[in-house]
Amino acid sequence: MRKGRLEAFSDGVIAIIITIMVLELKVPHGSDLAALQPLIPVLLSYVLSFIYIGIYWNNHHHLFQAVHEVRGGILWANQHLLFWLSMVPFATSWMGENHFAKWPVVVYGIILIANAIAYTILVRILVKHHGKDSAIAKAVGRDSKGNISLACYALGIALAFVNTWLSCALYVLVAIIWLVPDRRIEKVIVQ
Amino acid sequence: MRKGRLEAFSDGVIAIIITIMVLELKVPHGSDLAALQPLIPVLLSYVLSFIYIGIYWNNHHHLFQAVHEVRGGILWANQHLLFWLSMVPFATSWMGENHFAKWPVVVYGIILIANAIAYTILVRILVKHHGKDSAIAKAVGRDSKGNISLACYALGIALAFVNTWLSCALYVLVAIIWLVPDRRIEKVIVQ
Amino acid sequence: MRKGRLEAFSDGVIAIIITIMVLELKVPHGSDLAALQPLIPVLLSYVLSFIYIGIYWNNHHHLFQAVHEVRGGILWANQHLLFWLSMVPFATSWMGENHFAKWPVVVYGIILIANAIAYTILVRILVKHHGKDSAIAKAVGRDSKGNISLACYALGIALAFVNTWLSCALYVLVAIIWLVPDRRIEKVIVQ
Amino acid sequence: MRKGRLEAFSDGVIAIIITIMVLELKVPHGSDLAALQPLIPVLLSYVLSFIYIGIYWNNHHHLFQAVHEVRGGILWANQHLLFWLSMVPFATSWMGENHFAKWPVVVYGIILIANAIAYTILVRILVKHHGKDSAIAKAVGRDSKGNISLACYALGIALAFVNTWLSCALYVLVAIIWLVPDRRIEKVIVQ
Repeated sequence: MRKGRLEAFSDGVIAIIITIMVLELKVPHGSDLAALQPLIPVLLSYVLSFIYIGIYWNNHHHLFQAVHEVRGGILWANQHLLFWLSMVPFATSWMGENHFAKWPVVVYGIILIANAIAYTILVRILVKHHGKDSAIAKAVGRDSKGNISLACYALGIALAFVNTWLSCALYVLVAIIWLVPDRRIEKVIVQ
Repeated sequence: MRKGRLEAFSDGVIAIIITIMVLELKVPHGSDLAALQPLIPVLLSYVLSFIYIGIYWNNHHHLFQAVHEVRGGILWANQHLLFWLSMVPFATSWMGENHFAKWPVVVYGIILIANAIAYTILVRILVKHHGKDSAIAKAVGRDSKGNISLACYALGIALAFVNTWLSCALYVLVAIIWLVPDRRIEKVIVQ
Repeated sequence: MRKGRLEAFSDGVIAIIITIMVLELKVPHGSDLAALQPLIPVLLSYVLSFIYIGIYWNNHHHLFQAVHEVRGGILWANQHLLFWLSMVPFATSWMGENHFAKWPVVVYGIILIANAIAYTILVRILVKHHGKDSAIAKAVGRDSKGNISLACYALGIALAFVNTWLSCALYVLVAIIWLVPDRRIEKVIVQ
Repeated sequence: MRKGRLEAFSDGVIAIIITIMVLELKVPHGSDLAALQPLIPVLLSYVLSFIYIGIYWNNHHHLFQAVHEVRGGILWANQHLLFWLSMVPFATSWMGENHFAKWPVVVYGIILIANAIAYTILVRILVKHHGKDSAIAKAVGRDSKGNISLACYALGIALAFVNTWLSCALYVLVAIIWLVPDRRIEKVIVQ
């Protein structure tokens, strides 16, 4: 029951985050197709962030399947993750409206790193709480995907000073890695 | 349980989408009745999209009644549908603010087609997952309503280059077809 | 279960409606107390509408306690109510920003009437579906509160052409009548 | 069941409140790091309010674990709390955009006091309804944290006329006090 309400609140916040980003697709004044052209970078950054937020929701959903109990520390680790997720719309708009310029791309990468760290903290607290032999501990395992993501984000930030499209390619790459659903947890639960 | 959270998240996103559209009804500065007049096309397009989003929620609700299990592929097919639903407010505003001009009406039709395709993909993945003899497979059947809708959208887009009111009439026609509740699934479940 | 999802969706939409109204309390540029003064009518209209939406949520909550089954017609009667509720933020802002001028007060009253009618339609469909001897039919009874409300709204609209403060007094009166919780349904369920 | 829907509605409203605050982090026009500088006070006030709303959600969550029944009076006491929570985004933005100037800091403190009072009223009604020997009554106990918070807010408001940073330090102090999770209720339930 307690778990249920934390999931419901997280669902609510994530649903709002993923949806308010679309408000940055400001309706243009003109009514011809050309009026839509300046919106293309905004739309592209929206698509990327929509997928990222979707991945976080997906992983959060899988993660909490294996959770049995929710305590104060877990609530706050979850809140901390929601905070960084709430920063994504800002970074997304700044990046899209500035056509993937250097600093917005760097800040976007930093926000992605902050989210990854917040998620890792949440996972570690959950594992610690449930014990090393719990389903959740086995499911998370060595978390190689998480480490690869962090490396890609860091490299993406560094490459922004050379060519921001390389950064974006790395951000897209991480999204693709995670779009493959997290079967680790699914497997352990089903067994 | 797993199904429950996917429904809750979808409900959240759809509830936000259907509600933020009303933010485009910008409060006019004047305080007389004439100040409301420019809002009429915006209101009309809002009503149409409110009904469309309501239909999608309604069908989503009926569809998931027959769903037993949710896997990675289903989660992403659902996310994909939510993405295209999130494009509806933008297309709605652009169409309303430009008094149903040609390109906005065309783009609105394209978004409707994208939603219809995303819904069809979701249904097919669900049917594939549950088997050909499942309640969901029987309920969906030949999906003649879906095919008629796609034909109407396509015709609506083509007719926008002749007269956009013909397009709008077709979009309204599709809404009316779907307003008749989807008894196909209801019947199979009740039996 | 089916009822649950309709309640969840309605909760989501009503929660968003009640919250986005606060976005009309635009942050003033000045930092002294005087900068808040122009916000007072906006705040007052927000408070009134917050209470109204709260009453509708409250009554909706009580009403659905007595509901056993949800069918297509009920879903759409509910959607119809949500549509008129979604018009409240617009009418609220227009009334507040124009310091309770004649036409905005009239339109606000019309939106209140539309909501009352939509709620009545929902109740009637529910009663029809559950039968004359059902808990819900007994609980609703003669609905004298609803009739008094409609009379007050109509009188309020008429009086707006004399003095809009009389209209507002009537709107406040209706809110007070409903703030007394709807014990009719509560009683029948408990027995 | 009835409790569940009140929790769901509160979750929805609180999720929206905590998320729409981020909309005040307006995307700057420039694309260099300097463009982010004016946003720092807005971000700081957002972080503070995010934590405050998180605390209220957390406490609300713990409080309702011990609740068995929901009556009319409780619904309205909860609605009253949601109203004051909905005032937080406005006060947060005004404070952030005015770089923690005197009056915005005072108003922010008043809103915090109003929230604390609304929460206290809700707790008292719940205790009264459940009886002096209920889990909820034991869990709340003497509520020394609540009293300390009120004193800090009042002192913070007074000190705003001397130095607003002292006020902010006090507001932060209260947040820290509450970040320590409310083990009072947790203890009583577990036993």
